[in-house]
Amino acid sequence: MAADFEPLRDARPGCVLCHEHAGVPLWQDAAWRVIRAEDADFPAFYRVIARHHVGEFSSLLAPERQRCMDLVCAIERVLLEQLRPTKINLAALGNVVPHLHWHVIARFAWDSHFPQAVWGTRQREVAGGASARIGLGLAALDAAVLEALAMA
Amino acid sequence: MAADFEPLRDARPGCVLCHEHAGVPLWQDAAWRVIRAEDADFPAFYRVIARHHVGEFSSLLAPERQRCMDLVCAIERVLLEQLRPTKINLAALGNVVPHLHWHVIARFAWDSHFPQAVWGTRQREVAGGASARIGLGLAALDAAVLEALAMA
Repeated sequence: MAADFEPLRDARPGCVLCHEHAGVPLWQDAAWRVIRAEDADFPAFYRVIARHHVGEFSSLLAPERQRCMDLVCAIERVLLEQLRPTKINLAALGNVVPHLHWHVIARFAWDSHFPQAVWGTRQREVAGGASARIGLGLAALDAAVLEALAMA
Repeated sequence: MAADFEPLRDARPGCVLCHEHAGVPLWQDAAWRVIRAEDADFPAFYRVIARHHVGEFSSLLAPERQRCMDLVCAIERVLLEQLRPTKINLAALGNVVPHLHWHVIARFAWDSHFPQAVWGTRQREVAGGASARIGLGLAALDAAVLEALAMA
């Protein structure tokens, strides 16, 4: 997907999130874009990514932070309504790629790492794969996320 | 510290965050409390915890979410200013304790797990211990956090 990504003029050299979709692109506005991470263990895993290079959440102005978390919450609500997961996990880490991005992940008691974080130790294998277990196809889930973002 | 914790009337039976400080208590208002997690690997690790039992961030009303993230950002800014960490990590997971709490963690390139998440695999031992490396005593750091929260 990287081929049709349009870096902004202030893209940071060497920053992967300034230069690539890094997932399935779903939506963007002037400040934010949303992709679905393609993670076989966690199929319902979306990211809200700052379009401009910014490292820390607190570098944003208050209305920018609110907008960001409105988008995060819009995705969270879709995942809760559509999938009835055990828990939603939200995180902005950026240790590997210090360009602000929020992980929004539906977690299930049966998933490969639960109750560990997705960055923790695998707890089990999921027979048949996780995407077959979440109860909804990813195209339908993406469509529901897209609809929610359009109204956010 | 649990002895002097006052559970709210709507405390959820069996929920540790409804019934214990679960760390060094620093500050609270009617809706939120802040503690310092006592983690030897990550000394600059604070938590913003909902006083009432709520599971997911998106269950909050918009002004409650904004207040919550204002507190998170106030702590983040203190950590950035006082410690010049490599990165701040923010997360609301709750897989183990599904009562809304935000982790705010200063990360350093030298720390035990960097660049892995704090829930990931240990990368190294830190000679002398992490608290001796962050460049500020925890009492002074707590005081700076407290001052910032009082103005948030």
